[in-house]
Amino acid sequence: MIIVFKSDATEEQVQAVVGRITELGMSPHLSKGVARTLLGAIGDEKILTAHPVDAMPGVERVIPVLKPYKLASREFKKEDTTIDLGNGVIVGGQRFEIMAGPCAVESREQTLEIAEILHGFGVRILRGGAFKPRSSPYSFQGLGERGLKILAEARERTGMKVITEVMDADDAPMIAEHADILQIGARNMQNFSLLARLGKLQRPVMLKRGMSSTIQELLLAAEYILKEGNPHVMLCERGIKTFEPATRNTFDISAVPILKHESHLPVIADPSHATGIAYVIPPVALASMAAGADGIMVEVHNHPEKALCDGHQAVLPAPFAEMLVKLRVLAPSVGRTI
Amino acid sequence: MIIVFKSDATEEQVQAVVGRITELGMSPHLSKGVARTLLGAIGDEKILTAHPVDAMPGVERVIPVLKPYKLASREFKKEDTTIDLGNGVIVGGQRFEIMAGPCAVESREQTLEIAEILHGFGVRILRGGAFKPRSSPYSFQGLGERGLKILAEARERTGMKVITEVMDADDAPMIAEHADILQIGARNMQNFSLLARLGKLQRPVMLKRGMSSTIQELLLAAEYILKEGNPHVMLCERGIKTFEPATRNTFDISAVPILKHESHLPVIADPSHATGIAYVIPPVALASMAAGADGIMVEVHNHPEKALCDGHQAVLPAPFAEMLVKLRVLAPSVGRTI
Amino acid sequence: MIIVFKSDATEEQVQAVVGRITELGMSPHLSKGVARTLLGAIGDEKILTAHPVDAMPGVERVIPVLKPYKLASREFKKEDTTIDLGNGVIVGGQRFEIMAGPCAVESREQTLEIAEILHGFGVRILRGGAFKPRSSPYSFQGLGERGLKILAEARERTGMKVITEVMDADDAPMIAEHADILQIGARNMQNFSLLARLGKLQRPVMLKRGMSSTIQELLLAAEYILKEGNPHVMLCERGIKTFEPATRNTFDISAVPILKHESHLPVIADPSHATGIAYVIPPVALASMAAGADGIMVEVHNHPEKALCDGHQAVLPAPFAEMLVKLRVLAPSVGRTI
Amino acid sequence: MIIVFKSDATEEQVQAVVGRITELGMSPHLSKGVARTLLGAIGDEKILTAHPVDAMPGVERVIPVLKPYKLASREFKKEDTTIDLGNGVIVGGQRFEIMAGPCAVESREQTLEIAEILHGFGVRILRGGAFKPRSSPYSFQGLGERGLKILAEARERTGMKVITEVMDADDAPMIAEHADILQIGARNMQNFSLLARLGKLQRPVMLKRGMSSTIQELLLAAEYILKEGNPHVMLCERGIKTFEPATRNTFDISAVPILKHESHLPVIADPSHATGIAYVIPPVALASMAAGADGIMVEVHNHPEKALCDGHQAVLPAPFAEMLVKLRVLAPSVGRTI
Repeated sequence: MIIVFKSDATEEQVQAVVGRITELGMSPHLSKGVARTLLGAIGDEKILTAHPVDAMPGVERVIPVLKPYKLASREFKKEDTTIDLGNGVIVGGQRFEIMAGPCAVESREQTLEIAEILHGFGVRILRGGAFKPRSSPYSFQGLGERGLKILAEARERTGMKVITEVMDADDAPMIAEHADILQIGARNMQNFSLLARLGKLQRPVMLKRGMSSTIQELLLAAEYILKEGNPHVMLCERGIKTFEPATRNTFDISAVPILKHESHLPVIADPSHATGIAYVIPPVALASMAAGADGIMVEVHNHPEKALCDGHQAVLPAPFAEMLVKLRVLAPSVGRTI
Repeated sequence: MIIVFKSDATEEQVQAVVGRITELGMSPHLSKGVARTLLGAIGDEKILTAHPVDAMPGVERVIPVLKPYKLASREFKKEDTTIDLGNGVIVGGQRFEIMAGPCAVESREQTLEIAEILHGFGVRILRGGAFKPRSSPYSFQGLGERGLKILAEARERTGMKVITEVMDADDAPMIAEHADILQIGARNMQNFSLLARLGKLQRPVMLKRGMSSTIQELLLAAEYILKEGNPHVMLCERGIKTFEPATRNTFDISAVPILKHESHLPVIADPSHATGIAYVIPPVALASMAAGADGIMVEVHNHPEKALCDGHQAVLPAPFAEMLVKLRVLAPSVGRTI
Repeated sequence: MIIVFKSDATEEQVQAVVGRITELGMSPHLSKGVARTLLGAIGDEKILTAHPVDAMPGVERVIPVLKPYKLASREFKKEDTTIDLGNGVIVGGQRFEIMAGPCAVESREQTLEIAEILHGFGVRILRGGAFKPRSSPYSFQGLGERGLKILAEARERTGMKVITEVMDADDAPMIAEHADILQIGARNMQNFSLLARLGKLQRPVMLKRGMSSTIQELLLAAEYILKEGNPHVMLCERGIKTFEPATRNTFDISAVPILKHESHLPVIADPSHATGIAYVIPPVALASMAAGADGIMVEVHNHPEKALCDGHQAVLPAPFAEMLVKLRVLAPSVGRTI
Repeated sequence: MIIVFKSDATEEQVQAVVGRITELGMSPHLSKGVARTLLGAIGDEKILTAHPVDAMPGVERVIPVLKPYKLASREFKKEDTTIDLGNGVIVGGQRFEIMAGPCAVESREQTLEIAEILHGFGVRILRGGAFKPRSSPYSFQGLGERGLKILAEARERTGMKVITEVMDADDAPMIAEHADILQIGARNMQNFSLLARLGKLQRPVMLKRGMSSTIQELLLAAEYILKEGNPHVMLCERGIKTFEPATRNTFDISAVPILKHESHLPVIADPSHATGIAYVIPPVALASMAAGADGIMVEVHNHPEKALCDGHQAVLPAPFAEMLVKLRVLAPSVGRTI
């Protein structure tokens, strides 16, 4: 950590900070320049997280040098984390995994029909919301436990794995019975109680990036889960909030290689929520594969015009199948199977 | 609601949407132009929230005309909501209320000392975090229940009201015993489970705007609480995420008059979290009063250099007292008491 | 265009707007609902751009229905625009074009050396700045006309085409003598005088998206050039400003398919300026090709540690060659030659 | 400047950077820690702007310690800059100055009428655009030289000072004949040719912050003008681009105290362009005065419904007069005259 002093900091103020650094067990290195005095604090930076010095008199700013996350970092674990869901479905390996399904479980018929179609296309992970986080309390909020049972039935019939969102930590054990992957939505990425609760289960978790969260904040949120003992975490880029109104959010393609570089955790791309426009989803899915993502999550609906949520961003089965063909053509050229 | 059709929409597609609108009990008004066909759907727009038509074939986009929130709106309730905390402390009335205190309750001594100082300055609401949402799991997470008891003791000694954050809905009843206002932090603004749970209590709630939430999303989040039966909601502008690195967040001063115009709920400004720079807090506090806010929340610490969180953005008691003097001078010129 | 009236608009106010619409030669369609009155104005929307009605009493807002650009739109011209630079170099066709070279022309030796290397790799368009827009007046500002002559020499020796930036319209004729493509930088995207001046030349122009410009504003800026009679315009996505500090800007991958869908103009991706991190450039370049871009522009430097500008984001010749190999492997799987 | 090395940087790489720093006349201070090696480079940081080391092998990042602007900084000049426009109109002194007028000069009658009204209200600076930067080439582009002459006539009749925008450096001498302050619009804030050209004149300049420019970039743009010898620069906060759609831009109130703290230049607030909503302008104007701005610029129109540009954000004379009353009441409480 580097401490930059104000141009008018007194010698006493500088020595007070040096004293504090030494007291905390770090070793201080002072550099006095014409315009500024700098102090390098060498040692465990986490000590300074808990005992900040940036408010000491004479200090202009404190610049951290090390990354604030540890368990999520590539420095901590060099090899890629793979998450084995059983039956040969492994997220984070060479195979590019597709998660697809409706925004929400709306009925038994709808869900089973889509599941059968997707299973026929070779998709191995079914997505579907039973508990839906909606901006408005007047929008459809999901079928709840009944929705979970429908997902479980689809799982049994097709052999697909199931991913669904947890909104309330109290529901987690029940949801974990019916789903193979627990999803933490973008709006809950910094719901630290929820993160810690899912960290205590051993069920795989997919953590979606908050729409206003930095890449570093995403990795710190993952750290909350890992720290509690659950190593089965996958990260999901789903677009961030920007001034651009053409898309629902702005898909941050650079986040894919950066997350793969900084962390060992698998990275999934969600072009549906990121773009909100059906025709933009396939090119962004292809781009995500080319940029190194380990999989994608896509909303597919057989009757989007009747969908109770996000119909406009759902892809129909036919264009979804076309997209799969393109992904299959692309995969070998970037070293992937699918 | 206005439905804009694609330039190549067929007559069948248009008629299908007209049929659907009629079926939902709304009345359709068709306008055919040279370049585009438009359809006005007159009736209860909430029906279309639950039954979206934007994914129907031929539809380019759907433009809502009415606001999606109701109970939070000024149209629903013309007069300002006031929240009576007892002992003459009323938020949302003519008096501009100051909430002040440390970022976190760090110890009994620290908290009681600051409380006494603030009480001496005439501050009537004490803030202090017992449960702290922190980006990193390695940062100080708060004293929890022990912190609540310290706050309760400060309340008893000084007669001040207490505001503190709820992070986990399961803790809400316990926190409600020790605090007069339950705060929902920015990171939890769209934690819909938490909103609904606090809506079922009758304790006043201060809802902070998410750092990437629009004004409309803030009002919809308030709607979740109001809808469950708790009318005692105050809104808090605390800065949004932008590209500007000079401040921690960008304080959206326009949100103050817009919230007062669109809603009847009291509006509090938090210049500490918005700016993160001690010298910027007083001018932003003055600006908030001038723009029509009903109060401010400010972090004050007697030993910011020893603070376990956010020390750099805490104001010392002396400059805080100076700021209060300026606010007192300003208040009558904008029709406020303080 | 749709005009939404305030809930308390009077009949006189509504009739005044109807009168104004009729007076402007458009045809009004009134829909009166319980909560709001709507007015569809059918006709040439450009009339309302010049004669706005949104400030008339009783009007709440005006919603445009048509796109505000015309010449740049896919509706105006269905087939892709191709820009023939001579010697078989055509931007916007099936071949994916690579523009590469140093940020700035720093010296004759440096430029000729890089040009020879890139030419050897099969690159056909050389980039290099002679006039450099720099945030600080103390940064290297480019060699000016001397730099142009060095670029012209490199062009003559290698047969490569040259692209370079125009910052001042007065310099455009001189620059047009030495360069095949005139670049308008992100900071000048809404320098309307410059746009109009380059519209009067027939030299191809590459227009970079402003870092805070929407896709629609980019197309409107292109419209300024097209309207003056120069049809040889290519668009360049180079990242937008967001809150994310990990990259210099956030590359908006969705802009690629949206621009190709909305417009017939060629689209180039600039992963160097968008990301500012050498290791992130190749995956974003691959992603751009997969998403449908017509080419990329990349900063390459043989001695980035001696570069006078943007050395940290320059790719060395060796990793650049590796990236070209990957692009060549990828190209056929997305229907491209390279 | 602080150089942070990668965790795997070799001793040779570190020594190469130390050598380079020494060669450039700076003095290196090395601190070796367990996890990272740091190098403080003490000396004139501008040398490193021209000779960057961030691309040298082994370097992870370079952190500047000093501000990159000099002439614009409060450290360079402690006392406030005041700009004397003659006849007692001084921007940057104790008196809060109001600049008001129509978005565009539309006709002689309109302009003279508004000028008379504003003059009657005590406004001393008339704004009005003769050259208008418009996103669309189909929008009204201003009357050009004819508009300037109308402004000059209004100036002569009322004795008011005139501010108007320069879009093309070639027009600057002509505009300088008719106007007292030359405005550089937000879209041209980084049009470095224009900045340098206006720096060579001695006419006062108002530089508007680009809608995606940081406070530091604004000060660097001012530095371009100051460096050429023109010290008469005032800065204008007019809102930045964010995700919030409720306002046209987000007015960054914190920029006011930060600019006053970092720089000696006068700061003007433009609530009209920042918010785009007539009812939000007065509270933001009051807030700007409370936060320390030296003046405001407001769009006023007597017939906004006939305005050829930005009618919806123009304030009518009557509410403008009410706002002036409120500003006059507020002024003494923050130590201002008006």
